[in-house]
Amino acid sequence: MDFSSKKIKLTNKKKVAVVGGGLVGGLNACFLAKRGFEVTVFESREDIRCAKTIKGKSINLALSHRGRQALKHVGMEDKIVSNGIPMHARMIHSVNGKCSPIPYGRKGQYILSVGRANLNKELLTAAEAYPNTQLNFNHKLLDWNPETGTMTFLGPDGTEKDFQADLIVGCDGAFSATRKQFLRRSRFDYSQTYIPHGYLELTMPPRNGDFAMKPNFLHIWPRNTFMMIALPNMDKTFTCTLFMPFEEFEKITTGDELMAHFQKYFQDSIPLFGVDVLKRDFFQLPAQAMVSVKCSPHHLNEKCILMGDAAHAVVPFYGQGMNAGFEDCLVFDEILDQFNEDLSAVLPEYSRVRVPDDHAICDLAMYNYIEMRAHVNSRYFLFRKYLDNVLHFFMPRTIIPLYTMVTFTRTRYHEAVIRWKWQNKVITQGLLLLGTMSAAGATYLLVKYIPQKSTGSVEQLWNKLLTLKWFQK
Amino acid sequence: MDFSSKKIKLTNKKKVAVVGGGLVGGLNACFLAKRGFEVTVFESREDIRCAKTIKGKSINLALSHRGRQALKHVGMEDKIVSNGIPMHARMIHSVNGKCSPIPYGRKGQYILSVGRANLNKELLTAAEAYPNTQLNFNHKLLDWNPETGTMTFLGPDGTEKDFQADLIVGCDGAFSATRKQFLRRSRFDYSQTYIPHGYLELTMPPRNGDFAMKPNFLHIWPRNTFMMIALPNMDKTFTCTLFMPFEEFEKITTGDELMAHFQKYFQDSIPLFGVDVLKRDFFQLPAQAMVSVKCSPHHLNEKCILMGDAAHAVVPFYGQGMNAGFEDCLVFDEILDQFNEDLSAVLPEYSRVRVPDDHAICDLAMYNYIEMRAHVNSRYFLFRKYLDNVLHFFMPRTIIPLYTMVTFTRTRYHEAVIRWKWQNKVITQGLLLLGTMSAAGATYLLVKYIPQKSTGSVEQLWNKLLTLKWFQK
Repeated sequence: MDFSSKKIKLTNKKKVAVVGGGLVGGLNACFLAKRGFEVTVFESREDIRCAKTIKGKSINLALSHRGRQALKHVGMEDKIVSNGIPMHARMIHSVNGKCSPIPYGRKGQYILSVGRANLNKELLTAAEAYPNTQLNFNHKLLDWNPETGTMTFLGPDGTEKDFQADLIVGCDGAFSATRKQFLRRSRFDYSQTYIPHGYLELTMPPRNGDFAMKPNFLHIWPRNTFMMIALPNMDKTFTCTLFMPFEEFEKITTGDELMAHFQKYFQDSIPLFGVDVLKRDFFQLPAQAMVSVKCSPHHLNEKCILMGDAAHAVVPFYGQGMNAGFEDCLVFDEILDQFNEDLSAVLPEYSRVRVPDDHAICDLAMYNYIEMRAHVNSRYFLFRKYLDNVLHFFMPRTIIPLYTMVTFTRTRYHEAVIRWKWQNKVITQGLLLLGTMSAAGATYLLVKYIPQKSTGSVEQLWNKLLTLKWFQK
Repeated sequence: MDFSSKKIKLTNKKKVAVVGGGLVGGLNACFLAKRGFEVTVFESREDIRCAKTIKGKSINLALSHRGRQALKHVGMEDKIVSNGIPMHARMIHSVNGKCSPIPYGRKGQYILSVGRANLNKELLTAAEAYPNTQLNFNHKLLDWNPETGTMTFLGPDGTEKDFQADLIVGCDGAFSATRKQFLRRSRFDYSQTYIPHGYLELTMPPRNGDFAMKPNFLHIWPRNTFMMIALPNMDKTFTCTLFMPFEEFEKITTGDELMAHFQKYFQDSIPLFGVDVLKRDFFQLPAQAMVSVKCSPHHLNEKCILMGDAAHAVVPFYGQGMNAGFEDCLVFDEILDQFNEDLSAVLPEYSRVRVPDDHAICDLAMYNYIEMRAHVNSRYFLFRKYLDNVLHFFMPRTIIPLYTMVTFTRTRYHEAVIRWKWQNKVITQGLLLLGTMSAAGATYLLVKYIPQKSTGSVEQLWNKLLTLKWFQK
C-alpha cells in the first residue's frame, strides 16, 4: 500500500505517525501538521464521519480552560465553543426532589457540555485540511520497533503493511496498542486500577420541544454509594450517566426492580425520562467498567511518546480526561519550541515535565470519585465550598479553590494539588482559631451579662446550640 | 508431541499444568502431585540440573518459617534445612569497620541462607519422583485460552504444540507469560513499579579455607542511599549484593573509581574480597533492575491461578519473596481441602484470601527497602528494635515485633501490618507518657532538693541534657 499518495511539498521535515484518530489523536495531528511535520494518522476503527453507528465510550465531555487553550492554538476554539452548552453550576438534586445550585467558580466562569462525536469529526476534518496530513482508517497497529521506528499495521484489506516514522505519537486510548512495546522494557512503571463502579447511559428526551430540566447546569443526584449526572446536548436532550457498584447493577434485572430503584433514589427524574425510555435505555447495554491508568516515563527512546488516555486514563469524575489530553498536545508543542524540535531532548523533557501532572490529575479524578457522590451531601463540604469562594473573592491571589485552579487556569496539576493542601491547612487552622475565639468570647459575654443566679442558662444555651441539626450532620 | 508418554494410573483426576519450573513451580508441582492430580510442568529454560551455566537472578535466599512450613508439607523441610546456614542476627558494619549484631528474634530463632540453584534442583527432583508428574523443559508458553484451558507452547524443536488442562497454575515469575491473558480482561488491577536502585553481585572468597567473616549472620553495610549485604554459602564463600541507585552505578566506570568508592564506604570489605576479585566481579555484569508487582484478582475463571512472583513480585528487602511464594502453595492446598477440590469455589476464595496478604508483603518489602539502608543507622530505630524485643520477652502475646510476625510465624501478612500499626501506637503513647512523667518527676526532685538560690542550675542541667549526642541523632 502506498502511504505517499498525497504528495507532500515539504522536504526534510520529520515524518510523524499519530496512532489513534480519537480526540487527542485528531488534535495532535493538527498541532504537528501546523508545525510543518509530515503527519500520518492511523485509526483502527472506521472513519467516524461516515460511520452509521458510533461504537465506544460516550461519557459526556465538559470542555474547560486547558482544553480550550489547546483548541485555540490550532484556531478551533470558537467553532467548538459555539457548539457547546455553558454550564455555570452543578445542580444538586436531593432525594426529595429539591434542587440547589453550586456554582463552579466566579460569575461568568463556566464549563461547556460538548458532544464527543461532533468534536471528533471536527478535529479530523481540521487535521485533514492540512496538505501535509494523511488519515488512514481501519488500520490496526500490530507492533512497532523502538530502535527503527518501523510500525506494522493490519490494513482494511486484511494484509500487513509496514510504515516508517521518525516519531510515533501514541494517542490510542486507555488500552493503547502503542504502549505494549513500553511494557516490554525494563524500568517502565505502569498501573491500571479498575474502580468498583460501572456506568450506564440513559437519554432524557426533550419536553414540549425544550430541555426537560434547566440546561445550563451539570445536574447531579448524589446518593453516597452511587450517583447519577446529566449533561445537556445541543438537541435539547440530556445524556444521563448512572454510576453504581457493579453488584448493584447486577441486582436490577427486571423493569419492576429498576422502577423501584428509581422511585427510591431518583424519583424526580422518572417523569422526565418517561418509564418506557428508562426501561429501554437501562437494559440496552451492560454497565461499563472504568479504569485509571498511570505510567512513567511517557517516552521510549527518541522514537515514541504517549499522550491522552494512553499515558493517563482517568476516571471521569473531574471532567478533565479530555482537557488533560488536549493540554498534553499543548505542552508537547511548547517543549518542541523550547528545544528547537530536537527529539532527543524533547521526549525526555516531556516525560520529566508532564508525568507528575498527569499522575496528579489521575489522583484528583479518583478523589472526586468519592467527593462527587458523597461529600456534596455533607453540610461541612458545602460550607467549605462556600467559604473557599468567599475567601477567593476577597483574596483572589492567596486562596484559589482547587476546582478553579484545575478547571479555569493552566496551573500545573501537581502544583494545584500542593497549593490546595497548603490552603486547606491554613483555612482549617483559621477556622479552629476563629472557633476557639468565638467560643471564648461568647462564654465571656454570657457570663458577664447574665445574672449570676441564672448560670444554668449558659449551659442550656450551649446544649441547645449543640442539638441544632447543623452540628449533627 | 506426546505429553502422555509416562503412563498415569490415576483416573478421573484433574489435569493440572504448572507454568514455570522455578522455586514456586517446583514446589507447587509437589503439592499438586501429592494430592493425586495429573501434573505437567512447563519450563521455558533448559533443565537447571543439566545446565552448564545458570542464567537469571540469584539474589541469595533467606528461608524462614512460612517457607519451611510449606516444604514440611511435602516432606522436604529437613533436607533443605540441612543444606542451609543459620543466620541468627544481622551484623551491621559501620563506615569505620565496627561490627554490631542485631538479633532477628528470640534466642534460637534464625533464618537460613540457602542456595537458589540447589533448592531449585531438589524441588524438581522431588516433583519428578511422583509417578503422576511430568516435567517439560525448553517449553515457552505463547498463549492460552481462558474458556477452554488450551495452552500453546513453543517446544524445543521450534514447533508449536497445544496442551489441554483443567487448571493452569502460573508460577512463571515477575514477567509471567501466563499473566498476559489476565491483562487482556476487564477489571484486572495491575501495577509494576521499578525502584531507582539496581543490584550487582560480588563473591567474597574463603580465607585460609574458612569463611572470611563470621558465617552465622546476614552482614549489612547500611549507607543511607545505598547498601551492601552478604549471605554465607555452603562452600564458605559469601554472596555479597550491592544495592545502589542506577545513577551511582553509572558513575563508577573504572577500577580506580570503584576502589575509591569502596575505600570510602566499605573499607573493611576490601581485604576480604581482594582487589582483583572486586574489580572482576563488579564489571562482569551491569546492575540489574528490581520490580514490585501487584495484581488482583489472582485467578481467571475456573481455569487459571497465579502464584509466586507472577502474582506478587516483591523487592528483596524483607527476605520474603520465596517464603511468600511457598506459602501461596500451602494456602492454595488448604483451600483445596476446604472446598473439596471444587475449582469453581477454590479459585475465587484463593483470590479473596490471598490478595490482601500478597499486597501487604509487597508493601512491607518496599518499606524495608528504606529501613534496611537508612533506619538501621538511626539510634532511635535501634532503641525501638531493642525495646520491642524486651516488651516481647515480658508480654509475648501482646507485643510481637513485626519482623517476628513476618519471619517466624504464619500470621497473615495483612494482619501482621494491622497489628504492627496498633503496637506502634501503643508503644509511642507509652513512651510519651513515660517521658512526660519522668521529666515532671525529675523537675520536681531538682526543684525540691536544690537550694532556691541555685535555680539556674536546673536550667543548666536541662541544657546539658539536650546537648547530649543521643538527642542530636
